[in-house]
Amino acid sequence: MMAPMTAFALNEQLANDCSVVGDLPLCRVLLINDCRFPWAILVPRRAGLVELTDLPPADRARLIEETAEVAAALKKLSGAEKMNIGALGNVVRQFHVHVVGRSEGDDAWPGPVWGAGARVPYAEGAADACARELRRALGL
Amino acid sequence: MMAPMTAFALNEQLANDCSVVGDLPLCRVLLINDCRFPWAILVPRRAGLVELTDLPPADRARLIEETAEVAAALKKLSGAEKMNIGALGNVVRQFHVHVVGRSEGDDAWPGPVWGAGARVPYAEGAADACARELRRALGL
Repeated sequence: MMAPMTAFALNEQLANDCSVVGDLPLCRVLLINDCRFPWAILVPRRAGLVELTDLPPADRARLIEETAEVAAALKKLSGAEKMNIGALGNVVRQFHVHVVGRSEGDDAWPGPVWGAGARVPYAEGAADACARELRRALGL
Repeated sequence: MMAPMTAFALNEQLANDCSVVGDLPLCRVLLINDCRFPWAILVPRRAGLVELTDLPPADRARLIEETAEVAAALKKLSGAEKMNIGALGNVVRQFHVHVVGRSEGDDAWPGPVWGAGARVPYAEGAADACARELRRALGL
């Protein structure tokens, strides 16, 4: 049977670029396969979201708590100096929030990571190991 | 009398780059003086904030509601196709949230606006006029 049109499905490009960390109450958490930056993505598991304003207020409150939770965990794990948070969606329209650990001298500092050169994939197995580490840090 | 060390003061660079739109319950709303993009900034009026995780949960819930409010108003006023939201702080550490209206073919599309070339100031008086328009749209 086909899934109803309103079912959540992760965008294909996000699925290809990321390892799955796990599911928080609202969001699926992903780790981008780019070893230059500790870089997670949160995707609310609701169909048809494009803008922040498409979420009802209760989901927005949940979203920002989960974003803070992922930011705290990623900062602790990576030792990053500054966390960058962004919801752009100019290329992938499914609503998603980036959480990126930044440090002086990293490959894009002090500019944004989006559009900053080509991704550098993790060595074999290392992306999944990082995703598992973040999963544990989130208590999942 | 000197202000207590804990008083909120707007970062000098943000003050120089922006027109004041007005104050929502938590945040001061600013308009960046760059006519290439409809571009607002929200700054929670609390001293000493750097990361999202420095705000208590009640302020975070308030922040995301005010961000959604500014995004909706700016999208309506500008007719932008997609809103970009970001809290970076690699250069200005005072916690602040960017809300930027984006459209295909704009000066940075589909990349991010941060670090995308030099700002183009509004014509004399136009920044303040836009700030007043946004102020009205926010019911301030």
